[in-house]
Amino acid sequence: MAKQDKQFVKEITPQSEDFSRWYIDVIRKADLMDYAPVRGCIVFKPDGYELWEGCQRELDRRFKETGHRNAYFPLFIPESFFQKEKEHVEGFNPELPWVTEAGGEKLEERLAVRPTSETIIGHMYAQWIQSYRDLPVLINQWANVVRWEKRTLPFLRTSEFLWQEGHTAHATAEEAEAETRQMLDVYTDFVESVLAIPVFRGQKTPSEKFAGAVSTYSLEAMMKDGKALQAATSHYLGQNFAKGFDITFVDRDNTLKHVYTTSWGLSTRILGALIMVHGDDRGLQLPPKIAPTQVIIIPIGPQKERERVVAHATDCLKRLQCAGFRVRMDAREDFSPGWKFNEYEMRGIPVRLEIGPRDIDSGQVVLVRRDTGEKLVIPEAQLLQQLPELLDGIQRDMFAAAKAFQEAHSYVAHSLDELSEIITNQRGFVLAGWCGDDACERAVKDACGATSRNIPFDPPTRLDNCAVCGKPAAHSVWYAKAY
Amino acid sequence: MAKQDKQFVKEITPQSEDFSRWYIDVIRKADLMDYAPVRGCIVFKPDGYELWEGCQRELDRRFKETGHRNAYFPLFIPESFFQKEKEHVEGFNPELPWVTEAGGEKLEERLAVRPTSETIIGHMYAQWIQSYRDLPVLINQWANVVRWEKRTLPFLRTSEFLWQEGHTAHATAEEAEAETRQMLDVYTDFVESVLAIPVFRGQKTPSEKFAGAVSTYSLEAMMKDGKALQAATSHYLGQNFAKGFDITFVDRDNTLKHVYTTSWGLSTRILGALIMVHGDDRGLQLPPKIAPTQVIIIPIGPQKERERVVAHATDCLKRLQCAGFRVRMDAREDFSPGWKFNEYEMRGIPVRLEIGPRDIDSGQVVLVRRDTGEKLVIPEAQLLQQLPELLDGIQRDMFAAAKAFQEAHSYVAHSLDELSEIITNQRGFVLAGWCGDDACERAVKDACGATSRNIPFDPPTRLDNCAVCGKPAAHSVWYAKAY
Repeated sequence: MAKQDKQFVKEITPQSEDFSRWYIDVIRKADLMDYAPVRGCIVFKPDGYELWEGCQRELDRRFKETGHRNAYFPLFIPESFFQKEKEHVEGFNPELPWVTEAGGEKLEERLAVRPTSETIIGHMYAQWIQSYRDLPVLINQWANVVRWEKRTLPFLRTSEFLWQEGHTAHATAEEAEAETRQMLDVYTDFVESVLAIPVFRGQKTPSEKFAGAVSTYSLEAMMKDGKALQAATSHYLGQNFAKGFDITFVDRDNTLKHVYTTSWGLSTRILGALIMVHGDDRGLQLPPKIAPTQVIIIPIGPQKERERVVAHATDCLKRLQCAGFRVRMDAREDFSPGWKFNEYEMRGIPVRLEIGPRDIDSGQVVLVRRDTGEKLVIPEAQLLQQLPELLDGIQRDMFAAAKAFQEAHSYVAHSLDELSEIITNQRGFVLAGWCGDDACERAVKDACGATSRNIPFDPPTRLDNCAVCGKPAAHSVWYAKAY
Repeated sequence: MAKQDKQFVKEITPQSEDFSRWYIDVIRKADLMDYAPVRGCIVFKPDGYELWEGCQRELDRRFKETGHRNAYFPLFIPESFFQKEKEHVEGFNPELPWVTEAGGEKLEERLAVRPTSETIIGHMYAQWIQSYRDLPVLINQWANVVRWEKRTLPFLRTSEFLWQEGHTAHATAEEAEAETRQMLDVYTDFVESVLAIPVFRGQKTPSEKFAGAVSTYSLEAMMKDGKALQAATSHYLGQNFAKGFDITFVDRDNTLKHVYTTSWGLSTRILGALIMVHGDDRGLQLPPKIAPTQVIIIPIGPQKERERVVAHATDCLKRLQCAGFRVRMDAREDFSPGWKFNEYEMRGIPVRLEIGPRDIDSGQVVLVRRDTGEKLVIPEAQLLQQLPELLDGIQRDMFAAAKAFQEAHSYVAHSLDELSEIITNQRGFVLAGWCGDDACERAVKDACGATSRNIPFDPPTRLDNCAVCGKPAAHSVWYAKAY
């Protein structure tokens, strides 16, 4: 790549013109990532990585509050481990990178670079668990994983990505199922209340579940182009891995039993959702709870007043930082206020705080909301009291706007034709009855490219018949095109 | 491994009997790690990983305070990248694992699993840096790295390990050198004030420096068996990588120049130092600032008083937690107080808090220090005031004890015979004059197995002649056997 054509993007393509180009323009212009010189890999640049650090902080706290602890397992998994769970090997084998040589020698057994860690963790749990007293085991891992995907897209699908994967083992099926659902609740709380992204919660159909799971639950978010993005998954693995890896325990009744396991994960693809749910033609839009910078202070006014204004703005910066707000100031002289306004709107900072000489004289500050553009003039003395309220209000309004979009683009279809028509001509999710037959699910995909997203826990409507075959519906299913 | 002989260790081998066995016994009994089914790899179990999380928290704050930001670069590095810096490829090639197949196909170019990231980061910096305005670039990465080592030892040398690697780029040599030294200071502050480990600071000899560096600075810590452990390194890379990867910028004078780069790292091997500097025959000993649990509360007394005592202890637990202390309680009935005392001493928790019925009646609590065994009886009303002082005192005393050990085991030698005699018959570090010739350094290793650790910034003594050849000494060098 020649230096002159590096990552700068002059203008952001409007969403209505080309949503995919808009997405790439925004993440490049906001400096969140760069393409790496390895197929399908990206570099998480500081502004992008900082968003992931925010996700880690919020999730890690929630995992610990629900009794989980972090651990770290090896990156490499011996080939033989993949053979121990039949569905698992079939699901992941096509995507594995293999280490075949190391330290100058050919390895006797190939090592996979982990795509997920059920197998190696199952192997370790078999050593660690002996008695019902050792249960439950509640462990989470923050790690990089690799899946050699054919088509990649920054954040959404990359060969290497970052994630957390929880792996738990329990004495009973009930307890493991409760854990699976609990973690889906934890994810829901994080995604909805911190990222301000509304989700559809439900169970995956058998053809879409995790390779090796008994049941998979997911959160499905709707992007502004109407496509679905799976925000998090939680898997009830039953005794599949326990049997494959011989994870047994002596129960209270003195008999040897296999444990029940779960796994659950959320990855850096969530950053793609954050961008595509809230972003607009001006760029990123970050909810206050996840924004690395919540307020950007911009001193304004003529050169002769500069010193006084910057000193005042610096005071203001320090007071807000001391009070625990994430605030930065841009006092650079070689950029105009107008340029800065655009820049920080593009970067999605929720609130802009302007201070000029006249504001100082009248003891006020000007606050501008990124989401609505609303301008508030408030007494500076009230800033510390009013800012939390303002940030909470933006957080609430951003969720409400995303929720309104989600609802406006959720449809119901009673036939395959109707379903196809909506998927093809509208943007959004379509709820349709499903008999439970794989063939009917495939027929939808063949007709319009939509896949089943999940079987919602609380469907907005009851549908009596399968949209494809007309037989009685076992479930209502959300269909959508998906990332 | 059969389930019955899993990780439990009945007794800890005394340090004086066999230090290596003591080390393994302690890390197994304290449940910090387990061996993984991949050559030279370990699993960081929750109690071990929690120590690393403490290191991350403390270091990350210091990195950010000095203006660094986190980013994330790919795990895989194309083979051709290693060819671009000659010393670097020679240093790392023998230890690389290679991915040769992925996604069911043989790769056109082999991919190394990163042993360190100078090359791939250099490649990216070449894209990102154009002008003096883009400098300095101050980035850190938290990551896993792999080096296929012949001999491995848990935490100290494992095929895969966790670390942070800082990578910075500057307009001038002076600024890059100042950064290199600044980061050594940051590491010193962390290692000495948080981990209570005294270090010798200095510069590596050319034969021991990082492959591709102009100069390498290190912190060298002394373990209780007198051996050295390199706690952290900071490298001034000059323009070596800048030239290899063509990282150039247009300077203020409008000419194109190569940048100057640095890199610096600290890894999970530091956990080995923490264990081997402070541990004793009873087990771990953790300084309060890094201890995941600073105080363990143990309710004691007869069964009939149990309910009252546990309720009171729980109150105490909550008050301490609210005040920001890291506290846990063990109120299990199926373990005796005596068993618990031993257990938490073995796990190295700095303070034990005992509460029994008579303590409640007289309004007092009993505190026992892990380091000295000292027992303090204090009014419960003063607990919140006195605990910070007690913890600070333990932190100070642990550092002082380690410092006294380090000083008592630091020697000076004037000849190779004397040097060999001390290394062979005493435990510790030996300061000796060095002419600057590689051959003299090798002669020391051949004679007694000690390697040069570093050339201290502030040598305790000036030595006039090389201990090996007798020629005038260019430097005084610390020699020691090393992990």
